[in-house]
Amino acid sequence: MDALFRPRSVAVIGASSRQPSIGWQLTHNIVDDGFQGALYPVHPTLEHLHSIKCYRDVRDIPGAVDLAVIALRQDRVRPAVEACIEKGVGGLIIISAGFREIGPKGAAEERELVALCREAGVRVIGPNCMGILNTDPSVSVNATFSRTSPPRGNVAFMSQSGALGEAILNFANRLGLGVSMFASVGNRADVSANDLLEYWGKDPSTDVVLLYLESFGNPRRFPEIASRVARDKAIIAVKAGGTHTGQRAAASHTGSLAGRDVATGALLRKGGVLRARTVSDMFHMARALANQPLPAGDRVVILTNAGGPGILAADALEAEGLSLPELAAEVQERIRPHVRPTASLANPLDLIADATAEHYEKALDEVLGSGAADLVLAIFVPPIVTDSAAVVRAIARAIVRARERGVEVPVLSVLMGEEGIVEGEADLKAARIPVYRFPEEAALAMGAMVSRARWLAQPRESLESLAKAAEALRTPEVDQLLSGQGPGMLDAAVARRLLAAFGVPILEAEQVEDARAAVAMLADGHVVLKAEGPSLIHKTELGAVRVDLRTVAEVREAFDDLKANVADPHPGSRIVAQRHVGGGREVLVGASRDPAFGPMIAFGAGGTDVEAVRDVVFRVAPLTEADAWEMVREIRAYPALMNDRRGKPADVAAAVTVLQAVSNVMLACPEVAAIDLNPVLLLPEGDGGLAVDARVERG
Amino acid sequence: MDALFRPRSVAVIGASSRQPSIGWQLTHNIVDDGFQGALYPVHPTLEHLHSIKCYRDVRDIPGAVDLAVIALRQDRVRPAVEACIEKGVGGLIIISAGFREIGPKGAAEERELVALCREAGVRVIGPNCMGILNTDPSVSVNATFSRTSPPRGNVAFMSQSGALGEAILNFANRLGLGVSMFASVGNRADVSANDLLEYWGKDPSTDVVLLYLESFGNPRRFPEIASRVARDKAIIAVKAGGTHTGQRAAASHTGSLAGRDVATGALLRKGGVLRARTVSDMFHMARALANQPLPAGDRVVILTNAGGPGILAADALEAEGLSLPELAAEVQERIRPHVRPTASLANPLDLIADATAEHYEKALDEVLGSGAADLVLAIFVPPIVTDSAAVVRAIARAIVRARERGVEVPVLSVLMGEEGIVEGEADLKAARIPVYRFPEEAALAMGAMVSRARWLAQPRESLESLAKAAEALRTPEVDQLLSGQGPGMLDAAVARRLLAAFGVPILEAEQVEDARAAVAMLADGHVVLKAEGPSLIHKTELGAVRVDLRTVAEVREAFDDLKANVADPHPGSRIVAQRHVGGGREVLVGASRDPAFGPMIAFGAGGTDVEAVRDVVFRVAPLTEADAWEMVREIRAYPALMNDRRGKPADVAAAVTVLQAVSNVMLACPEVAAIDLNPVLLLPEGDGGLAVDARVERG
Repeated sequence: MDALFRPRSVAVIGASSRQPSIGWQLTHNIVDDGFQGALYPVHPTLEHLHSIKCYRDVRDIPGAVDLAVIALRQDRVRPAVEACIEKGVGGLIIISAGFREIGPKGAAEERELVALCREAGVRVIGPNCMGILNTDPSVSVNATFSRTSPPRGNVAFMSQSGALGEAILNFANRLGLGVSMFASVGNRADVSANDLLEYWGKDPSTDVVLLYLESFGNPRRFPEIASRVARDKAIIAVKAGGTHTGQRAAASHTGSLAGRDVATGALLRKGGVLRARTVSDMFHMARALANQPLPAGDRVVILTNAGGPGILAADALEAEGLSLPELAAEVQERIRPHVRPTASLANPLDLIADATAEHYEKALDEVLGSGAADLVLAIFVPPIVTDSAAVVRAIARAIVRARERGVEVPVLSVLMGEEGIVEGEADLKAARIPVYRFPEEAALAMGAMVSRARWLAQPRESLESLAKAAEALRTPEVDQLLSGQGPGMLDAAVARRLLAAFGVPILEAEQVEDARAAVAMLADGHVVLKAEGPSLIHKTELGAVRVDLRTVAEVREAFDDLKANVADPHPGSRIVAQRHVGGGREVLVGASRDPAFGPMIAFGAGGTDVEAVRDVVFRVAPLTEADAWEMVREIRAYPALMNDRRGKPADVAAAVTVLQAVSNVMLACPEVAAIDLNPVLLLPEGDGGLAVDARVERG
Repeated sequence: MDALFRPRSVAVIGASSRQPSIGWQLTHNIVDDGFQGALYPVHPTLEHLHSIKCYRDVRDIPGAVDLAVIALRQDRVRPAVEACIEKGVGGLIIISAGFREIGPKGAAEERELVALCREAGVRVIGPNCMGILNTDPSVSVNATFSRTSPPRGNVAFMSQSGALGEAILNFANRLGLGVSMFASVGNRADVSANDLLEYWGKDPSTDVVLLYLESFGNPRRFPEIASRVARDKAIIAVKAGGTHTGQRAAASHTGSLAGRDVATGALLRKGGVLRARTVSDMFHMARALANQPLPAGDRVVILTNAGGPGILAADALEAEGLSLPELAAEVQERIRPHVRPTASLANPLDLIADATAEHYEKALDEVLGSGAADLVLAIFVPPIVTDSAAVVRAIARAIVRARERGVEVPVLSVLMGEEGIVEGEADLKAARIPVYRFPEEAALAMGAMVSRARWLAQPRESLESLAKAAEALRTPEVDQLLSGQGPGMLDAAVARRLLAAFGVPILEAEQVEDARAAVAMLADGHVVLKAEGPSLIHKTELGAVRVDLRTVAEVREAFDDLKANVADPHPGSRIVAQRHVGGGREVLVGASRDPAFGPMIAFGAGGTDVEAVRDVVFRVAPLTEADAWEMVREIRAYPALMNDRRGKPADVAAAVTVLQAVSNVMLACPEVAAIDLNPVLLLPEGDGGLAVDARVERG
């Protein structure tokens, strides 16, 4: 990868003197951005280009070539690649299009090219890409045909779309976001997002990694790699193409309630990646994470000189789930003598329209020194009679002073309007305080900071070791249970035994041959009768479940009816009896195997209307205990589970046990395609939980 | 109001030669923006200002003064107002602060000023505001102290925050959004948002009204006024201050499940107002609604030369609920000969990176002529080798040509990146095609356009006549039922009779004095027993409800238990028996009286965990039939209600009946503070619905 990103020499094959052209722009960018090595333009006829000697063929170049960039017509790419391999280049960027993206013929040619390069040990970026750049002054290579050169900074950026890459570099420039490295990966025939994540994970000049993704090359490896990198660097992703395919692909059983978009969300989350809704949201987050420390909590204090923007900020911060505690009376009293008498000192602190530089400085001093804020948002709307530049400078000064005293509270600023702002902004920039135009943008960034801080605070469990531990739980009994079954829905009794073997608490079910045997169960309380069998999947809908049977007459009637109308017409089915368990709350636990992402675990409010209510959350297996607790707390019905108006709260710890057990089944048994436990009854706290109905599908 | 917005003469009281100052900026703006009438600066000592003769006192001005702008120290405002009244000015703008916003003393002074002006028939804007402007060339008055003068256009804008007003004018300028009138209303002591809505509703040069609201002055009148204006003009509002207060104010019964923010949403919706989440979203919507026709449906076709932005646009459009149908094969075939062979012609139409001006023009011609699109989104990312300006011009040309042929399909454009775009943009601007930088912004605007078109297509029912019709339903029986009751929860039997009188279908409940009477009811099926009484509000939680009693023994046991453990310990309570109705789906209907907004009606998924699941939607009464249907279709559980896997769909029409009946009760009976019907059982389609439990609170 160093040959690609830290080359000492670059050959441009397809360099051109024609303007505008990709071949010209590539050469121009390398020269213009001050490449610290040797540039060798390769051209069939030209003697010189950009005052640099040209070569007819890459093999004619006298010295070593670390990186070759190929920008030729599609049909000339293959010979050029072969020449490069012969020359012994270290890495290749293939700009040329006309490969996998145009159909099967192009895909085959792409595969052949990659095979050639792999054999020769040459890494390839592209084809069909815009190139790469590295702003490290000791390298300073811009091997893209972008017309925008970003400033040096600590943000690395990968784009799967070349077109968007250019637009985004442009946008980064306007926002003053500095870039460490950039790569447009095109068809990702060889170098993938995973490779870049690993590489940038080790790059000391990169603090934030931005990903524009359209698809995952190897989603199985992604969470492991990302979560390792995310320990040290913030990763923010925009994933396009979610909704569309997602809605079309939605299937019927609970494990597949997750559309592609939800699955993607689960995968990114597993990797500790912050997800941005749009490219501009990604930049708002990046500017904060690239320049400010992480907060210790979620308490935000807002300073403003205008009520409206303060309210907008408060709304947006609360929507992000952050808190805005009132300032303690003693802090307010320390600030009061230094500001206008009519200033409002709760939170937001409204210093009112004619607040001066001194007011801002003193108020910030006190807020930053008080320990009352985990994050501070300084809003300033330049009024006509104030020296705006002085106010902005005072904000910067107070923050720098607090830093010098060791205060590590992140501060973001919102400067609305333009007059007088520009001069002052230099001071904020020097203090690395991001400036936003609208309060909502800063609020979004703060939400991302808190979310990242929370993720980092979670205990670290290696995903690999969790997966290994799960596999170790596969006993000979499990082998035996599974080996006896063909594809499709497992026999209900086998499914129960399989799940029990992994520690899922299951409500026992006893096969009953006649009504008498069922009646005998009344001795232990009310009874449930069910017909079970290979063609009885949607039992409730088929009338195959009779709950809360209380009398001999009820049991008899239900048995006879089930037998005659459900069991007998469905060959291979039988009737089982269970104890009727009252007083629990219904939840569902499910799992399915996503063809790309692997096992997805679902948790949600239970009952028969699961699909309609869709109060379901998803994670990618393996589940850490923290993941499972997060899932339980995330569903909308969680407060209802914990509501003790009708008795004790539900035993949600039992749900965590079931979730981790189901995750283990999926990891240990690749034969299992899907699991559906609905309902799982959560009994009152301390009494555990019970899976009442279990469906397991073999792939 | 014309004296304020169309003055022929303006006096500035507090004009100043000192720079920067509000008094100077006001005078400067009036002169500099080319006011078409006479300006009279009023100053205690100066002879001339801006080459214009000054007056010592407004009363010294020789001619009539339509509008006086007061920008004096707070303690000098009152004498100036008195002088203005004596002079006989038509309207007043009080810029000065120091009134209601600083506390009770200021509020009292403000009230006195307004009383003086009202008596004299003078309308007042402010105090504590930034002024007004009208860009109509025959008036051309900029009586603000903003440093930004917006271009002439068809968008009127009201801000409750002066600070935000300036920032927003600035932003409008950068986006090239033309303004017809602007008003910063400050404390709204006299002229309110409602007044401005009515005034702008009649202004022929205004097509879109933007509102930045922090609170509603008179929310009762707002929906009536807004829905009248919204027939002709799009109204878009940003309402700040929702979440914060909302969450703190959330109360316990279902009618109050609506926080302030939800109530605000219901109020805006009632008025046909589009709600924007942020100020920038408001502008994205405004640019589309101010310049493009409304769509006839929700089918969007996307043209692009880059996959990534096309996918982002598709995602965002689907999130807005719009559809992206594939283009019919014959349309694709008509386009195919004119574009690259590798172009993808489904939807998005990806014309690929090197698409030329001709490709765009031909494809747009076909798409616009095909009738396949209700809206078209043209995305262009300038590649290095294309004449970008030519492409942008071709897009504009195709749209203009389609318009000339009578095609009224709205088109928005997204131009990412900058190179070569600027020249072409003039053509788009001339064709009134809004240009966005990101696909998501255009998608949001399209969502607003479709939403407005749908609102306009709804049958128009006058809110006033609905309210009158409801009042006419109040019979002498209702008077009698309510007159016998004090404040607090109505007796359950009285509540049932009241609701029945308005047409709410209620499940009968018979008071049973002993177990024998209860057992007798078994003849008609299973039985429900309930204890009812003034201290038995949360019946389920108190164990006061026994459902599905099937045998004599069960009824007896339940009766005795209820009597001994619930009814007897709660004085004034009794036991009632109801038929147990099986097979219905539970929903809730509720109502509460918001102190500011009036009656709010709630509809949601029913059952005991209502508050946790919060699948509830709200509207402001009176409900049109369309409103009630919208509510029913909006809850997340709607698909479950219509799901026929377990029999017929639920009778949702019955829910509409109950909703409108409850709305009528609230309108006809101001004594009723809240209604809570939970559950309402919706029986299978055709069988109606039944309110099983009813609580009515008297205010």
